[in-house]
Amino acid sequence: MTSEARPGHPDGAPPAYEWPAGKSAAAVVSVDFDGPTPYLWASRNSPKQLMGELEQRRFGPRQGVWRILALLERLQIPATFYVPGAIAEAHPAAVRTIVAGGHEIAMHGYLHERLDDLTPDEVGDILDRSMQALAAAGAAPPFGYRSPSWEMTPGAWEKLRTAGVRYDSSLMGHDHPYWLDGLVEVPVQWQLDDAIFYRYVHGSTRAPVPASVVMDDWVREVDAIGRFGGLAMLTVHPWLSGRAGRLVAFEEMLRRAGDHDGMWWATAAEVADHHRGRYQESDGSGTTEL
Amino acid sequence: MTSEARPGHPDGAPPAYEWPAGKSAAAVVSVDFDGPTPYLWASRNSPKQLMGELEQRRFGPRQGVWRILALLERLQIPATFYVPGAIAEAHPAAVRTIVAGGHEIAMHGYLHERLDDLTPDEVGDILDRSMQALAAAGAAPPFGYRSPSWEMTPGAWEKLRTAGVRYDSSLMGHDHPYWLDGLVEVPVQWQLDDAIFYRYVHGSTRAPVPASVVMDDWVREVDAIGRFGGLAMLTVHPWLSGRAGRLVAFEEMLRRAGDHDGMWWATAAEVADHHRGRYQESDGSGTTEL
Amino acid sequence: MTSEARPGHPDGAPPAYEWPAGKSAAAVVSVDFDGPTPYLWASRNSPKQLMGELEQRRFGPRQGVWRILALLERLQIPATFYVPGAIAEAHPAAVRTIVAGGHEIAMHGYLHERLDDLTPDEVGDILDRSMQALAAAGAAPPFGYRSPSWEMTPGAWEKLRTAGVRYDSSLMGHDHPYWLDGLVEVPVQWQLDDAIFYRYVHGSTRAPVPASVVMDDWVREVDAIGRFGGLAMLTVHPWLSGRAGRLVAFEEMLRRAGDHDGMWWATAAEVADHHRGRYQESDGSGTTEL
Amino acid sequence: MTSEARPGHPDGAPPAYEWPAGKSAAAVVSVDFDGPTPYLWASRNSPKQLMGELEQRRFGPRQGVWRILALLERLQIPATFYVPGAIAEAHPAAVRTIVAGGHEIAMHGYLHERLDDLTPDEVGDILDRSMQALAAAGAAPPFGYRSPSWEMTPGAWEKLRTAGVRYDSSLMGHDHPYWLDGLVEVPVQWQLDDAIFYRYVHGSTRAPVPASVVMDDWVREVDAIGRFGGLAMLTVHPWLSGRAGRLVAFEEMLRRAGDHDGMWWATAAEVADHHRGRYQESDGSGTTEL
Repeated sequence: MTSEARPGHPDGAPPAYEWPAGKSAAAVVSVDFDGPTPYLWASRNSPKQLMGELEQRRFGPRQGVWRILALLERLQIPATFYVPGAIAEAHPAAVRTIVAGGHEIAMHGYLHERLDDLTPDEVGDILDRSMQALAAAGAAPPFGYRSPSWEMTPGAWEKLRTAGVRYDSSLMGHDHPYWLDGLVEVPVQWQLDDAIFYRYVHGSTRAPVPASVVMDDWVREVDAIGRFGGLAMLTVHPWLSGRAGRLVAFEEMLRRAGDHDGMWWATAAEVADHHRGRYQESDGSGTTEL
Repeated sequence: MTSEARPGHPDGAPPAYEWPAGKSAAAVVSVDFDGPTPYLWASRNSPKQLMGELEQRRFGPRQGVWRILALLERLQIPATFYVPGAIAEAHPAAVRTIVAGGHEIAMHGYLHERLDDLTPDEVGDILDRSMQALAAAGAAPPFGYRSPSWEMTPGAWEKLRTAGVRYDSSLMGHDHPYWLDGLVEVPVQWQLDDAIFYRYVHGSTRAPVPASVVMDDWVREVDAIGRFGGLAMLTVHPWLSGRAGRLVAFEEMLRRAGDHDGMWWATAAEVADHHRGRYQESDGSGTTEL
Repeated sequence: MTSEARPGHPDGAPPAYEWPAGKSAAAVVSVDFDGPTPYLWASRNSPKQLMGELEQRRFGPRQGVWRILALLERLQIPATFYVPGAIAEAHPAAVRTIVAGGHEIAMHGYLHERLDDLTPDEVGDILDRSMQALAAAGAAPPFGYRSPSWEMTPGAWEKLRTAGVRYDSSLMGHDHPYWLDGLVEVPVQWQLDDAIFYRYVHGSTRAPVPASVVMDDWVREVDAIGRFGGLAMLTVHPWLSGRAGRLVAFEEMLRRAGDHDGMWWATAAEVADHHRGRYQESDGSGTTEL
Repeated sequence: MTSEARPGHPDGAPPAYEWPAGKSAAAVVSVDFDGPTPYLWASRNSPKQLMGELEQRRFGPRQGVWRILALLERLQIPATFYVPGAIAEAHPAAVRTIVAGGHEIAMHGYLHERLDDLTPDEVGDILDRSMQALAAAGAAPPFGYRSPSWEMTPGAWEKLRTAGVRYDSSLMGHDHPYWLDGLVEVPVQWQLDDAIFYRYVHGSTRAPVPASVVMDDWVREVDAIGRFGGLAMLTVHPWLSGRAGRLVAFEEMLRRAGDHDGMWWATAAEVADHHRGRYQESDGSGTTEL
């Protein structure tokens, strides 16, 4: 823990986050393995579905996810895969390989449904269906959860809590784990999401950012999070980061960032379990105040 | 003052701006400490408020503002914090720490209300309410003012003038202080606003710009403003620049720019007071002509 | 073939793609020679057509295409030109020069019609009309096909198949050739399309990306595709990449990428013929699954 | 003239452009001195005009134009200023200084009216009014013309021709001067327009590009245009490029590009006069074909 995290304003400044013994910060590689499901959901009421966007996204299960799995194996890094139920059903070999590699599999909707378009009961049904699909494909319950598109409603949060979800990983209220209304949040961060830099589909108005620019920024961000003692939640999508040049740049980024002294490379579930064991909800590191 | 500021066209070129003795330019660090208020205001009539955006913005009061305060203490730089009334009420410990650090606190609406959506009377009511909230939290009157979203209307300007506001800091008509219709303007500049580079929320169509790119540009801009004898108004938001990598890059930027010879690092109020003492409004450096 | 392409997950990972003897990857230079046709199609129902956009796009046939032809001659690289029928009719000298240079000419609509705005019968009529226009201008049948705007519908796909098209080059489901529903796909990639980086027209909300940034990324991408044994499909537009600075950067990029050991520089038709000879459709490297 | 401009395809390739003796390419610095007029025109029917945008644009006549004039004097470069009539009326001292500096003044509408919103008769009236305003401010007739927003209609073109305008500088059909329907076009280029990189106003969805990135690209573009024997038309706006850091970067860019051997630095009028003397319209370098 560096002095940056102890600003010396004892009356209001947040205390330094406490990691497992010998660790001063943490990093998680998370893989949002969604394939074409976001487009299938968004266009579910559209009379026509465009092959261009479908094929672009199918690159993920066909090619990208296998490259990411091989990379994780080369670097011996554990990861968390957020897998919509429909993808688990369609790609059982990929799910088997993820499990065999020692990685975590967690929930990500059934067809990548956006929570703010659903009623709480629909959220509950989708949780059930998605949990069954993952279990049928061989993943171990209970599961963590990441919301499609990283959005959340109070009604959906309540459903997650009552469904026995161990942790959520969709929000950005801290850069370390925190309690929020009865659930452990393992926070994400837009800046460490490959999609907002790389995604280009019909109708996009900006070109993708070069991988070398993005990964150089990720190295700096992981390093800075290390200095402040926080959590670096890296998120990649197989149809985007599985492309050749981005995969190479991601590997190089992990090799550079992986050298960080005291950094704990873990799955999201391991981070959530640590938090649950170390902190009580009454510590109140995250609350719903203004 | 360098020769750049004296172009030798005596019939129309603006004269070089005169700073306090021994100073040839000025820089202000300003902190728009708005937390989730811009979203709460923008979504005030919406049936649902999304937890994703709220939590992202809550990172500011929970974590970001404390990192910025610690940074200012490390570098011994005075700053001006523009604080919506609702934030001051919800975070009194942060306000106390800002005051204890010798920084200025100034008005920024009550719930970050955009002026062009308000009647002049509503502007007046919000000014009163915001002034009371800041005073109750321990800040010293009278206050400076910065409009939420940096927009302004003639009706609101009139209200600011009659309410006894000492200066406004929302407009861009010069890169040094100037009189405008009865008030001192301490001008801002989009290029030195972190938000337009870093802000990414649902519906955004462009990815954030890496901090190293933005801060490299800020170093060049502050240096150039120093050469022309102007004012560099730096603006950061705790929920954006308080993120680890951006904080590190901001600190590095301040260390590099802070070396500038003859640069006066001051609060916006100090700059406004200097202008009021040195220039009469009849000098007319800013007028409402075409 | 490097180890990256053999991730050691034999139950589901795609096998390494097999190129002609002595080659480990491939690259195609493709030229979407569309001139003003995309704008003429998009504004076909508009009461006014703006000279600004028309003239900007006319730079392609007037100047850009000749610079690209000279560049290909200097570097002795074969290319595939996708030419709308109306352009072939209006610019026969350019078509003759393309053919004389040993390059492939393939279909790209008649007036750059977007497929998702057409019925299957309209697609069929346009295929006929475009094929006739290319033949009349001196190109050799049968032709490959690239859809305007890189979009595709199942109905149009069926028309391509029954019209005897040898290959399509509009989709992104792999980064090597693959069978898809009865046709060979020679895939494209947004990241290697100059238009999404360079195109700026009235109403655009982002500035063009500098050529040095784009071409640096292309060098990295081609190199990475070479390591993974895939296909690098480069796409340039004469009205964009024919501009002086971009042409110089493109030439420099080709000189750097051209050094790649084992890279097969070919036309799209040659790549499609290789695939057709080496793989049966029943190998099913691309399917329409989720 | 380098070999790049003579691609050896004599049947269709454009011949190398012929510049005055001893010159192999040309560059023009053009200044679109519009101040707040684009916003005043765009918001002419709006019930409220925002002070934020007005003040941002007033930086141009207050400060930016004087810095640009001083820069041109330091570097001894002649420039062409495109000045809306309303600006000339409001800022006579600036017009006098431009004329005294030996620069060209040319037409740019009266209140920066977009041509595609006007009838041909309105275009004619505005031409008259704008010509009178410039003459009254001391500029010499007859004038060149640049359309606000760089758009053009056939009806407006006809009006320009019958009004005796010497040249237009709004279109992009070549990167050297050319005849188009009875008028000499001295072409512009989006890539060399500061506004599309720097402009940020309320409602913008992308941040400005750093000046160092833009000016580095301009140096490369001017160099490449020099190699191909074309015309580099640089365009800056005082409210944008007059900002301190951008001015410094622009000066550095001109110093680097100014070293180019054989480059003719001229006004747009001088370039148009050269073209008119060297080429007949029947040479037809630009036509309205597809």
